[in-house]
Amino acid sequence: MHQKTKSKPKNRTKGMEEAAKEFLKHIDSPEDLRKLPQKDLMHVCTELRDYIIDAVSCNPGHFGASLGVVELTVALHYVFNTPTDKIIWDVGHQAYGHKILTGRRDRFHTNRKYKGLSGFPNIFESEYDAFGVGHSSTSISAALGMAVAANRKGEEDRQTVAVIGDGAMTAGQAFEGLNNLAASKANVLVVLNDNNMAIDPNVGGFSEYLVDIATSHTYNKLRKEVFKALQKFNIGGPRSRDMIIKINNSIKTLLTRQTNIFEGLNVRYFGPVDGHDVERLANVLKDLKEIKGPKVLHIITKKGKGFKLAEENQTAWHATGGKFDKTTGRFLETTSNIPKPPKFQDVFGHSIIELAEKNEKIVGITPAMPTGCSLNLMMEKMPNRAFDVGIAEQHAVTFAAGLAISGMVPFCNIYSTFMQRAYDQVIHDVALQNLNVVFCLDRGGLVGADGPTHHGVFDLAYFRCIPNMIVSSPMDEAELRNLMYTAQLPDMGPFSIRYPRGNGTHIDWQTPFEKIEVGTGRELSEGTDLVFLTIGPIGAKVQRIVAQLQEEDISAGHCDMRFVKPLDEVLLHKVFANHQKIITIEDGSIVGGLGTAVIEFMADNGYSATIKRLGIPDKFIDQGTQTELARDCGFDMEGIRQAARALVGKPHKAP
Amino acid sequence: MHQKTKSKPKNRTKGMEEAAKEFLKHIDSPEDLRKLPQKDLMHVCTELRDYIIDAVSCNPGHFGASLGVVELTVALHYVFNTPTDKIIWDVGHQAYGHKILTGRRDRFHTNRKYKGLSGFPNIFESEYDAFGVGHSSTSISAALGMAVAANRKGEEDRQTVAVIGDGAMTAGQAFEGLNNLAASKANVLVVLNDNNMAIDPNVGGFSEYLVDIATSHTYNKLRKEVFKALQKFNIGGPRSRDMIIKINNSIKTLLTRQTNIFEGLNVRYFGPVDGHDVERLANVLKDLKEIKGPKVLHIITKKGKGFKLAEENQTAWHATGGKFDKTTGRFLETTSNIPKPPKFQDVFGHSIIELAEKNEKIVGITPAMPTGCSLNLMMEKMPNRAFDVGIAEQHAVTFAAGLAISGMVPFCNIYSTFMQRAYDQVIHDVALQNLNVVFCLDRGGLVGADGPTHHGVFDLAYFRCIPNMIVSSPMDEAELRNLMYTAQLPDMGPFSIRYPRGNGTHIDWQTPFEKIEVGTGRELSEGTDLVFLTIGPIGAKVQRIVAQLQEEDISAGHCDMRFVKPLDEVLLHKVFANHQKIITIEDGSIVGGLGTAVIEFMADNGYSATIKRLGIPDKFIDQGTQTELARDCGFDMEGIRQAARALVGKPHKAP
Repeated sequence: MHQKTKSKPKNRTKGMEEAAKEFLKHIDSPEDLRKLPQKDLMHVCTELRDYIIDAVSCNPGHFGASLGVVELTVALHYVFNTPTDKIIWDVGHQAYGHKILTGRRDRFHTNRKYKGLSGFPNIFESEYDAFGVGHSSTSISAALGMAVAANRKGEEDRQTVAVIGDGAMTAGQAFEGLNNLAASKANVLVVLNDNNMAIDPNVGGFSEYLVDIATSHTYNKLRKEVFKALQKFNIGGPRSRDMIIKINNSIKTLLTRQTNIFEGLNVRYFGPVDGHDVERLANVLKDLKEIKGPKVLHIITKKGKGFKLAEENQTAWHATGGKFDKTTGRFLETTSNIPKPPKFQDVFGHSIIELAEKNEKIVGITPAMPTGCSLNLMMEKMPNRAFDVGIAEQHAVTFAAGLAISGMVPFCNIYSTFMQRAYDQVIHDVALQNLNVVFCLDRGGLVGADGPTHHGVFDLAYFRCIPNMIVSSPMDEAELRNLMYTAQLPDMGPFSIRYPRGNGTHIDWQTPFEKIEVGTGRELSEGTDLVFLTIGPIGAKVQRIVAQLQEEDISAGHCDMRFVKPLDEVLLHKVFANHQKIITIEDGSIVGGLGTAVIEFMADNGYSATIKRLGIPDKFIDQGTQTELARDCGFDMEGIRQAARALVGKPHKAP
Repeated sequence: MHQKTKSKPKNRTKGMEEAAKEFLKHIDSPEDLRKLPQKDLMHVCTELRDYIIDAVSCNPGHFGASLGVVELTVALHYVFNTPTDKIIWDVGHQAYGHKILTGRRDRFHTNRKYKGLSGFPNIFESEYDAFGVGHSSTSISAALGMAVAANRKGEEDRQTVAVIGDGAMTAGQAFEGLNNLAASKANVLVVLNDNNMAIDPNVGGFSEYLVDIATSHTYNKLRKEVFKALQKFNIGGPRSRDMIIKINNSIKTLLTRQTNIFEGLNVRYFGPVDGHDVERLANVLKDLKEIKGPKVLHIITKKGKGFKLAEENQTAWHATGGKFDKTTGRFLETTSNIPKPPKFQDVFGHSIIELAEKNEKIVGITPAMPTGCSLNLMMEKMPNRAFDVGIAEQHAVTFAAGLAISGMVPFCNIYSTFMQRAYDQVIHDVALQNLNVVFCLDRGGLVGADGPTHHGVFDLAYFRCIPNMIVSSPMDEAELRNLMYTAQLPDMGPFSIRYPRGNGTHIDWQTPFEKIEVGTGRELSEGTDLVFLTIGPIGAKVQRIVAQLQEEDISAGHCDMRFVKPLDEVLLHKVFANHQKIITIEDGSIVGGLGTAVIEFMADNGYSATIKRLGIPDKFIDQGTQTELARDCGFDMEGIRQAARALVGKPHKAP
């Protein structure tokens, strides 16, 4: 995403910047931070923010979220005794400041790189990373577990803090966690980091007015009036702790006019507080540290705070796509003007519109990833037919089932790794009822810099065991379009189409739609020494490998299977009749995916052949570029060639 | 569970019963119901309740829930134009009355039986079953999908109603659905069926007082007072629809003193209403039908209503374990006094206590199934160390991860089918961090009468592809105890132990704990013609089969694999070295489970053998007894014998 605007970000004054430079370099752990007088925290914040801007301008990564929580990060580590006290960053893409303050400043330039720092908190990286994250909305549940454990171990003074954004609160798991937290006496502080652009503009004014609502004069007077009103009707004053909390929360709701689920759950609620006033935040946190039991602090922050372009366009600056000039905000163009093949995401985004223009029944669904998956194109063009349901994968799938049962054809686009959140709904609501929901599994396979929490490794295995489910993956853009076209034809049932993060292979991708017979692959090359069976875009590379191997006198056949389920049995009978050496290749776990399906077929049909399965081995894979990781897994181009040579017993001769 | 009490249930008077007999037999569809005058609905209710009691006393099934919603069921079908209007019963075990009123009265004696009616709404069974259910908390999402579809199709008059219990509201998906519903304009009525025993006793009084709160004099006067109070502080009157809803909801909260999440979400909220006053319910529903947009009706009901024993002991009468005398409530003893082996559930329940007495770190977790999984034993004995987290599987798993990362050893007991709800949390929070959480997967395999929504079919496949995960299943009680013992030893990582619904094989089950080497199976018999590789309790049957086949001159070996992951490779090398004929048997999907793991091993190691995989085929399996269903799947005792005979080419000779 190349930002063209020339407006200059309004950074803090030069003099202040200079002064601040003295702090950060001396902070090698939160211990150092805690030695500073509180008045200096604002300088630390200034400097930390600059450090993040500097670092991300050179090394792309998540951006807006970490800038938004600079003050919170500093205040938390200042007030709480980390790492004994536990801070759990929900999602974790806002934890750059946390990493820099906890001994990883000098390694921060390796962020998200191969063998470098993880882009998320990671327990294997630092004792300050209390809980590994990446997927959203786990923090409250994890914090409750930690607090209960502390209690059982007699460590009652240990504090546990979950920092969660308002977006992450839309996921059911956050609610489950909060509901359980509310029912407990656990000593957990939930910091609700509210950076919602959609928030009522009035709230900003209220937040100043209500900085310390617990002691606010206005609030207390109002409470008395309401109690009097209640007493007139013999409803009585507060008699229990619950009743007191309930009344306090209800009145706060009236005052703040915000949608707030805490009041319904009897959790003590404080705020909203300005999340960019670090001294005040530190004071509030000190006070809250003394209050036992579950409690919520609601802070208001601005995503991208301190970098004007990011404040103004939060979606574009959520994560940066490349290096940029931190003064102008202009992205440094590293690519040529030569047109390149589109992202699979954009092929999806444009093709669903084309299909929807012809088929009234089609609707689109995304759980909070409209830009990432390019459903935003449809949301702009057909706002009534494309739904962003928030971070709510379970709802997304059952909502799709409800639409499908009523005759619509929903395309439910969910990243492979996030589909794990809706696995039961896929089985119970869609597959069991044999409904025509089209699952577009974006980010299938290795995703690169986001690392182990985000790789789409398991979907072929976990979908393949579901009855009625069609499991497909296109080799290129044309096949993606044709699978999408096929999936929306009548009587298709549950139909999954998986494709990776990144670009396809064809400049002229907008080919006419053609129906694909479900369960048919394509024989792309014939060969005598071995045959490659591939699924997905890796097949395009294998086509080149087949040509390269030819030069080494290795005659390789190649079938693009297209479907992991149902398998093309006609094609496979032909393959096993003619071949004793087979290599299966998939950008997914070798446990349970295409390779497994092929050997099941072999065993069931009494064939015997040597089969080498290439794919992601049975372990979690760290971050790196997709190429680096495929190499480590043994299915980059050289790895595939090597496997072929080894299988046919012809070592590589240098040309 | 044999109820010994002799207290006589207080049924309605004889005369009334007689009169009522005239109605139900004439209701073959809701169309017939809607022809009655509203005053007669109470008689229909009386009769419907008797019908359910009669039926369930002869044919065990869910009991309390359907009795609780008799009036709601009658009122809904009376007011709404089913099946054009859609009623979605959350979970669905309360839908017996619905089934009886919608043309299935005469088949109701086949409820939950093989080839009979499903125990849950099922779209393949009746057009009145708008959405298939079984797992909880899907109804709001599905209803929203249906309402949006109706809207797109120009069927704005079509009404959509989701009926959801207060228990089901604790699941995250219900919150996701409600949150999305609140943000929509969809014409959906959510009926919150509140039958929580734990509810504040005062609420009953309030519910009468607030029967029609929307027009209540008291409520309106109070609202005015509060507005006046607000105006004093310049907070202003209502300016937007949201603000009006917010204020109304907040005041209702003050009045009703209930924990209620709706007020936080700006959904119009009505109630609470007495759910056993059918005429009033019908009136309220008629009014609500006229109100556009999302709305919640909160009704208060009593689970087991009308059957005194069930009202008094709701947990015991949630579902009935056998036939009972509907007058005395006494269960008709059909079993002998000969002691029988315990349920695996009870072995778990007692063994976790034994282990926890020795290991301070052990805690137990169940998502709302304490009685079903027997964790209630630990909850009674060690209340601070056993947690029922409500219907919240996602939370259960991440909570366990939080405990484990802090040094505890949580045993997280979740039914196999419900574990699908927490799949992402198992991968992302537990396995990726290699934490020692013990997953006790109860109800693994075919569960019987609960049918396709509840069979535990997929877990071996979906767990086997997860790195770090140990996947085990005991053949008998002693092995279950030993696996539980082994799983809590230091440095074990994620450890799953799967066992079925039902009884084991040993009377003297309380054997001393022994460590099992992870990834080792047991060779229980040697044979020359073929070898059985089994996982789980099916192995005990195979031991008998081995002896039977001996009499047919078939020499069968048998290995209890114990672990699907890691596989016992030493044992398998021996098996493949000595055998050309192998039968794998598992009470789970043949796609991706033990059989698949064995053929992966074969292919990876260059072996060649004929392998027959027995297990659950790649389709959804209806209800029936476990024996009937295993027979249909081909792995009951005769099916296994037949498979052995076919494999060795020796047809069965009659003895």
